[in-house]
Amino acid sequence: MIANSYYAQDVHGPYDLHDIGDLALEEGGTIRGCRLAVATFGKLNAARDNAILIPTWYSGTSKIWEQVYIGRSRALDPEKYFIVCVNQIGNGLSSAPHNTPAPFDGPRFPRVRIGDDVRAQHRLVTERLGIQELALVVGGSIGAQQTYEWAVRYPDMVKRAAPIAGTAKNTDHDFLFTATLSEALRSDPAWKGGWYASAAEVHQGLRRQARLWAVMGWSTEFYKQEIWRGYGFSSLEDFLTGFMEAYFLPMDPNDLLCMAWKWQRGDVSRMTGGDLAAALGRIKAKTFVMPIDEDMFFPPRDCEAEQKLIPNSEFRVINSVCGHLALFGTDPGYAPQIDRHLGELLASEA
Amino acid sequence: MIANSYYAQDVHGPYDLHDIGDLALEEGGTIRGCRLAVATFGKLNAARDNAILIPTWYSGTSKIWEQVYIGRSRALDPEKYFIVCVNQIGNGLSSAPHNTPAPFDGPRFPRVRIGDDVRAQHRLVTERLGIQELALVVGGSIGAQQTYEWAVRYPDMVKRAAPIAGTAKNTDHDFLFTATLSEALRSDPAWKGGWYASAAEVHQGLRRQARLWAVMGWSTEFYKQEIWRGYGFSSLEDFLTGFMEAYFLPMDPNDLLCMAWKWQRGDVSRMTGGDLAAALGRIKAKTFVMPIDEDMFFPPRDCEAEQKLIPNSEFRVINSVCGHLALFGTDPGYAPQIDRHLGELLASEA
Repeated sequence: MIANSYYAQDVHGPYDLHDIGDLALEEGGTIRGCRLAVATFGKLNAARDNAILIPTWYSGTSKIWEQVYIGRSRALDPEKYFIVCVNQIGNGLSSAPHNTPAPFDGPRFPRVRIGDDVRAQHRLVTERLGIQELALVVGGSIGAQQTYEWAVRYPDMVKRAAPIAGTAKNTDHDFLFTATLSEALRSDPAWKGGWYASAAEVHQGLRRQARLWAVMGWSTEFYKQEIWRGYGFSSLEDFLTGFMEAYFLPMDPNDLLCMAWKWQRGDVSRMTGGDLAAALGRIKAKTFVMPIDEDMFFPPRDCEAEQKLIPNSEFRVINSVCGHLALFGTDPGYAPQIDRHLGELLASEA
Repeated sequence: MIANSYYAQDVHGPYDLHDIGDLALEEGGTIRGCRLAVATFGKLNAARDNAILIPTWYSGTSKIWEQVYIGRSRALDPEKYFIVCVNQIGNGLSSAPHNTPAPFDGPRFPRVRIGDDVRAQHRLVTERLGIQELALVVGGSIGAQQTYEWAVRYPDMVKRAAPIAGTAKNTDHDFLFTATLSEALRSDPAWKGGWYASAAEVHQGLRRQARLWAVMGWSTEFYKQEIWRGYGFSSLEDFLTGFMEAYFLPMDPNDLLCMAWKWQRGDVSRMTGGDLAAALGRIKAKTFVMPIDEDMFFPPRDCEAEQKLIPNSEFRVINSVCGHLALFGTDPGYAPQIDRHLGELLASEA
């Protein structure tokens, strides 16, 4: 275990820790006493049919969903819905390399797949929360991967699905981009094969990863229009350090590597012997596929190809010069679009 | 000086070395006895008005122009034109960090700007070759930057210009992408501040750079369609190592850093006090602005914004799923488009 004050209640809470027992993983490992960090908003109704599940993305936690997506008179309204935001395995709030005791700590934390996360969440939702039906599963990026996995794996349980800025089967290009992120960490001599004493030692690798995100995470137009000026930064370099590096610096490298490995291999067709059309054809949820038009690594055309394979689905493109990182909510024009689409989806018969 | 058999006549020749004398640089340094490696094709006519100048791109040399762009019955036809392909400073054939003797060797090689290259080429062309008029200047990527610089700096001399997959003023996004390429080299402990004993020592940094190019150099669609299979590779990893890493591995890191620094700062508006419209407004050449539709870092919309500022210009988009690296000629549909546009440009009144 490595002490890291970033993954704490005062930064990311309030959230509850649920021990869901031992979780046997697809790749052969086991997380013993797997803990899921869960933030909930609103109340489960008497019919137990107003639950919304939200899985998290790479580097993100439930906190950003609370801050950017959930609120009264928003589509994700805790007055109407019981919103369950589950932190993915490896994100540092839930079981992760940095908070697992030896001998399964750090680089010995077992390989986790999207399917493992979704099975863990299913156990939480059905056994701990007593929920058999989800009015909506919505998530961005790796959260979109988990959303697809939910809809394919438990088609009768998921009534509506909204994968934002992500794909059901990860692409080769996306795999390569993610590999450069991980290599930025592992190539730092301070990483020491994952046996660093504190995340701060690997700060150069974390800074390098932050700058790779700067290239692919936003868009060419984001920089052309100098959108970052609106965030209170005095120069491009000030933004790169003060926003991008500041965001990644406190994070645990092994936690990030755990999530990246999972992200690279997201693929619902693993459930159907490699047949993506068959996998997506299983989805019963009313599904809105919601890519972001300027996304450089989950481009709309890749998402549209998948949408066409989903029976009861619509293609809803979000417009933002912030590209993939519009997920952060930095574009004031973003949230209204999300609310409009999710509101329409939630209002639809399912 | 560092021995490197890659930058040799048997790999990149035949080319001639021209000593153009001392070159005082914009940033304050001087290249003493600056050598330009020049490959020529065809003959200068009696009127001395059939010369075509081609500057090279990052990591490239005159060889790829010979192999992919120049030939009988091509637009760049040595039967009709005297084609002068000048290797940019820093590319390893012309004066560069690796081939310069101490004390100005390696990391002490002075900073070079696009304007320095173009002034050096102008000296070569006017004083050594006796040419006062260029029927066409054409180049890709950093070669496009030099093409713009030529057209703005010597408007009466350049009759036609064809910048391919590049901009007149580099963008912030492009600057950031290039920074990650350079950081991949400098973060290799074997780089030793530029004082490595051989390029082979820095092979991990070169390999990392190659993989960053894999993400941004091609396109998402290139990988979706697995275009690399057509190049004779058995898997994605085989392609990354056998093509991308193989391409960069023999190169000198300091040479690459010299070119990258220049690329990041290409900006014709330096000649007009920062006024890009005024700079591009000076161009008298008939100009075809030729971006590649899938280019991830010189996107067509950036090129179109510049084209609109050039008086006698047309916007000619090249279509290729190979993205920026279509420049390599790996897409069989690429050369015919280049030939059609360049042929039309060369046939036009200027």
